[in-house]
Amino acid sequence: MTTSVSPIPQFYAVIPAGGIGSRLWPLSRAEAPKFLHDLTGSGSSLLRDTWNRLEPLAGADRIMVVTGRAHRAAVEEQLPALADKNIVLESEPRDSSVAVGLAAAILERREPDVIIGSFAADHVIRGARFFDAAVREAVAAAQAGFIATIGIRPDEPATGFGYIHAPAPAHIEGAPSARAVDHFVEKPDYATAEKYVASGDYLWNAGMFIAKASVILEELGRNKPELLAALRELAEAWDDKDKRGPLVDRIWPRLEKIAIDYSVAEPAAAAGRLVTIPAEFDWDDVGDFASIAKLHSTGHKNDLAILGEGARVLADASSGIVISETGRTIALVGVRDIVVVDTGDALLVTTTANAQKVKSVVDALRIAGRDDVL
Amino acid sequence: MTTSVSPIPQFYAVIPAGGIGSRLWPLSRAEAPKFLHDLTGSGSSLLRDTWNRLEPLAGADRIMVVTGRAHRAAVEEQLPALADKNIVLESEPRDSSVAVGLAAAILERREPDVIIGSFAADHVIRGARFFDAAVREAVAAAQAGFIATIGIRPDEPATGFGYIHAPAPAHIEGAPSARAVDHFVEKPDYATAEKYVASGDYLWNAGMFIAKASVILEELGRNKPELLAALRELAEAWDDKDKRGPLVDRIWPRLEKIAIDYSVAEPAAAAGRLVTIPAEFDWDDVGDFASIAKLHSTGHKNDLAILGEGARVLADASSGIVISETGRTIALVGVRDIVVVDTGDALLVTTTANAQKVKSVVDALRIAGRDDVL
Repeated sequence: MTTSVSPIPQFYAVIPAGGIGSRLWPLSRAEAPKFLHDLTGSGSSLLRDTWNRLEPLAGADRIMVVTGRAHRAAVEEQLPALADKNIVLESEPRDSSVAVGLAAAILERREPDVIIGSFAADHVIRGARFFDAAVREAVAAAQAGFIATIGIRPDEPATGFGYIHAPAPAHIEGAPSARAVDHFVEKPDYATAEKYVASGDYLWNAGMFIAKASVILEELGRNKPELLAALRELAEAWDDKDKRGPLVDRIWPRLEKIAIDYSVAEPAAAAGRLVTIPAEFDWDDVGDFASIAKLHSTGHKNDLAILGEGARVLADASSGIVISETGRTIALVGVRDIVVVDTGDALLVTTTANAQKVKSVVDALRIAGRDDVL
Repeated sequence: MTTSVSPIPQFYAVIPAGGIGSRLWPLSRAEAPKFLHDLTGSGSSLLRDTWNRLEPLAGADRIMVVTGRAHRAAVEEQLPALADKNIVLESEPRDSSVAVGLAAAILERREPDVIIGSFAADHVIRGARFFDAAVREAVAAAQAGFIATIGIRPDEPATGFGYIHAPAPAHIEGAPSARAVDHFVEKPDYATAEKYVASGDYLWNAGMFIAKASVILEELGRNKPELLAALRELAEAWDDKDKRGPLVDRIWPRLEKIAIDYSVAEPAAAAGRLVTIPAEFDWDDVGDFASIAKLHSTGHKNDLAILGEGARVLADASSGIVISETGRTIALVGVRDIVVVDTGDALLVTTTANAQKVKSVVDALRIAGRDDVL
């Protein structure tokens, strides 16, 4: 395990910054999605943290961000060093095959032997040294022609993540920990997850893919030839601003919405072209408020995590998490495992056990036409 | 049981409007105490409801309100028919012996044979017909020289109220239900309260006292002669605006703070001069948020009471009470027996079981010097 400060040759980092994070409503909104928030108390947004992690590996001029048009200003404010050519704006979200596939197609056109690594903008990773090491091994595997994914060693039988079954070593030069991926498993039930964790052969799928852009595109073309053709057409015109606009208007609405797990990763695994690097760092997708509470917990039963600048919280016999965006005085009395999210126009009160259900609120508000608070 | 629309001769109603209602923070504040709020959803404040109950019995020009100087404007706005001579402003709160005793002393001076009835400004009563009947019986007992209190038949072994022990009928002309009060009991524990309720000989003490002003003053003088002397001195000068101010400044700070229960009611009961009229109406002192929730409950387990103009509440698998003063969207997910009180500068989250503990928040805020939200 070594740490190096020099960028990795041929490597280009791609950050798809797309998801709103419905389960983090009312903190996360269409206008202020999860990746723009500081959920760790680090003082910077998840997007900025992601950038900071990748910059030593790729260099500031080799990080591409794929995001929605509405977030351009916020992203540029967060990432002042982001080059103009490295911001790809989506007219509307089209899932990860499009986000990563388009980045791959654009970058491959600019630089045929480029190796890209795709890293979500809204995950939390602790242990930069281990992250560096895993990415460097993944790049070595990518050099050898594989698609590499960084898998997370499960520390509990989580049912909110997909799993990667990788029982055998892959024996790749420069990637000693690489394991051959047998197959991916969708979010399991608790009993199954317990078996996975006990076996030691399963890792969490954190959606980090590293491969030659050409290899990703080849795999995509095998499974979704029409999608690949459309992405290549877009990429062809992308760096010509006069051509790009009309082409996007014409092609974008027809692009298939499909996760890269289905269009690339699973078929590649089935064909023996996918390996995983088991990660030694702490990882969390901070998908809901329970996960944020856990992130801030010191392990005590009476833990109450408090987030938000100028938060004024008075708590008596209470635990859980308070996120305050208003500076109002918030008093909690005798509420355990509570989740209180206080924003200017919306307030959420739930419990950590119900954190996953917050998405249903967003759905209900959407149905009710309450887009003003979404 | 009869209802009459004509005012009761000699009768004068007194409304002490003093308590802030700390257990109803952050709804109830120093600047906006409990009695100024609509807690029943009637569309009018508790004070106005109290006035409306008393007006048919006393007449609009025979209702006196004793309140703090800071609340003058709010009280006058709520009660446009309140006569100038009938508003008694306290420079600072001095408990019920002063509030009721001063009103008695002022009114007795104006009208020596007046019968006064004191009714809290912030209780909820349902069943006007039964209230009328009880007051008329109480006035008959007052005519006979007794101090009468209206006692509430307990419908559960409440531990938050004092009890009145009244096992025997009093045999008073015009007050057939009157019972002789043996003694008062402070808030009991649950087991004791259960025995009280089972015995049928106990009533809740709702702090409603009806008697000749002269009788109340006589009883007060027997037990607190100095306090009586001070109140008589104030009363003497009260209707002369030039004299009143300097006298209040001199005397008020020295007035003893003592509940009328101790200075008048208990000694009168011990001397056989106190009777109670068991009330047939529904009564609640709405002392905390659990009690407000109960008031609005239809008896279903999933009841969620929602108070506040323009409240926007989205609830999933939740029960309890939401009071909204902000119009913000409030989402509840999987929280049972919850209490959420959402005001402009302060938010409370607790449970109905912890409702009595809200006072501790107010104490903590006071200690922290957070008078801005008190």
